[in-house]
Amino acid sequence: MGLAATTSEITASKKAPDFLGAVATLRALTATGLDGVNQEILACMQSPVAMIPDLAGHLINAGGKRIRPMLTIAAARLFDYDGDHHVKLAAAVELIHGATLLHDDVVDASALRRGAQTANIIWGNKESVLVGDFIFSRAFELMVAAKDLRVLQVLSRASGVIAEGEVLQLTTQKNIAATIDMYLAVVEAKTAALFAAATQSGALIAGCTPAEEDALRGYGRNLGIAYQLIDDALDYDGFESDLGKSIGDDFREGKMTLPLVYAVARAKPSEKPFWRRVISDSCQKDGDLEKACVLMERDDAIADTITCARRYAAHALNDLSKAPENEFSAALADLVETSVSRAF
Amino acid sequence: MGLAATTSEITASKKAPDFLGAVATLRALTATGLDGVNQEILACMQSPVAMIPDLAGHLINAGGKRIRPMLTIAAARLFDYDGDHHVKLAAAVELIHGATLLHDDVVDASALRRGAQTANIIWGNKESVLVGDFIFSRAFELMVAAKDLRVLQVLSRASGVIAEGEVLQLTTQKNIAATIDMYLAVVEAKTAALFAAATQSGALIAGCTPAEEDALRGYGRNLGIAYQLIDDALDYDGFESDLGKSIGDDFREGKMTLPLVYAVARAKPSEKPFWRRVISDSCQKDGDLEKACVLMERDDAIADTITCARRYAAHALNDLSKAPENEFSAALADLVETSVSRAF
Repeated sequence: MGLAATTSEITASKKAPDFLGAVATLRALTATGLDGVNQEILACMQSPVAMIPDLAGHLINAGGKRIRPMLTIAAARLFDYDGDHHVKLAAAVELIHGATLLHDDVVDASALRRGAQTANIIWGNKESVLVGDFIFSRAFELMVAAKDLRVLQVLSRASGVIAEGEVLQLTTQKNIAATIDMYLAVVEAKTAALFAAATQSGALIAGCTPAEEDALRGYGRNLGIAYQLIDDALDYDGFESDLGKSIGDDFREGKMTLPLVYAVARAKPSEKPFWRRVISDSCQKDGDLEKACVLMERDDAIADTITCARRYAAHALNDLSKAPENEFSAALADLVETSVSRAF
Repeated sequence: MGLAATTSEITASKKAPDFLGAVATLRALTATGLDGVNQEILACMQSPVAMIPDLAGHLINAGGKRIRPMLTIAAARLFDYDGDHHVKLAAAVELIHGATLLHDDVVDASALRRGAQTANIIWGNKESVLVGDFIFSRAFELMVAAKDLRVLQVLSRASGVIAEGEVLQLTTQKNIAATIDMYLAVVEAKTAALFAAATQSGALIAGCTPAEEDALRGYGRNLGIAYQLIDDALDYDGFESDLGKSIGDDFREGKMTLPLVYAVARAKPSEKPFWRRVISDSCQKDGDLEKACVLMERDDAIADTITCARRYAAHALNDLSKAPENEFSAALADLVETSVSRAF
């Protein structure tokens, strides 16, 4: 019992102490704003149609890290913003993310998210599609309430790009001819666009200069790409409990993430039929994921994905160097540095 | 041959000459604006992801009457608006409507719309959900480009209400205990909210007075309810070719529209099991729709639905009387008057 506890602590500390520590620091720095975000979200979900707060509450309370709203609040506070519109924007960003997750889970027919049953399993696909639309509309109402047309441009543009990225991902799925460029285009659209809009809109509402706006947008974008690349690597090489999703999800769905793009591109001719069967033909059996992981290890598919993530993290730090130096920029720097070392 | 042609002409003229004539007049009055709407919509649908313009184009070109964008343009021109932002708003309204239709068809598993195969049948449900999200985001980008925060409030609020109405409709479906109030709440949200926002935003962008804004909002709302009530009546008593959808669609889906609410409420005790079987249990066989129509005829379910529609039409005309008198208000009055006589 004592030994088990010790082993578990060592595993935990080996896993991701720095990243989770950086998230905790950022959360503490943005705590007041985040409380406001939670209240805004709760108020938004109210509806006389009982299913709406039930389903939306299940999604919103499912224990996400709230990284995106933290980014918006930190970006605004980095420029000494002392109003309260950043809270509305941060809540809107989290709601756009939430609506996307609801529709994603329908599209992917996912049964689990962060260890809990998905809304499409509990309430149904129809309900998830329509409540997703409702949440999305509420996000726009919140943004409009912040009364800044430039911010509205940034956030409405981002939500279009996200949807475009989701469609693009659908067209690359199970396509073993997918290239690094195609993969990066998907990540740029479906993940980096909202991270970029989150930090840019926080900076904008605080009245930063155009150069600072560019810097914060760049930071968000590059952090988003690095974050997604690491997420994709963890899907083949992570700890199940740390992710809240099952290892191998992307593999089972035939998602052409960077580890898979590398592995397929570097496969020997004799291994091509294996990838065709498991990815193109979706014909998977016991041991296939393990074999895929062995091939990825041999061909440095995971290692090179992490190297790629580190490049984007370096860009993000460079972007941040153009912003004022204070506790918020220090926490944002920590976040990006540790995000590429999490779970490794 | 000669006789057949004559019969067909008589049928056509019996069907809906006035309403289609009123639509044609309104279309002619708003022709320049509508050309702009088509260009905006076409530009919005562009994307390097080829499936997006394909699927969106299929939906947008499927031959809708474009009533909503006509309403926005007419409402703006009614107040002598001579800018071009009303075109962006009208396009946004049509795109919100289009995104809703895409998601509706997924939720209802519909195979036909306006006589053509639906996008979910041709491209798939996943694709329809995601392209719907894309169109919805583009609608917001267009609204933002019109740079009027009050209009943004009106339109973003409406899109939330529409989604709420769709969820509400889902919860009343196949529920033979659904009441007139529940039905009207669904219509208010899923149809009238966008009609109201269409006319209100046109009036607002033209710089009308608050009283005129209320009047145009009221006109759109009441026209929307009347229009939907007639649509619901036509589903039991229309001409297939005129609707572009099959008669009995609502019946087959167990949608508790007003004709059905009346029929079930007025059924004799011995007829209740019939309604339970065909609606609650979705167990329908040949002849059931015909039997339902006979019962509706006997109990004035269709006639009273039309009477109800006429009440809302009268409200709409009263709203319109508070606006300036010109060719646009005359055309809008014609539209509402003929909408309640179409196909009867």
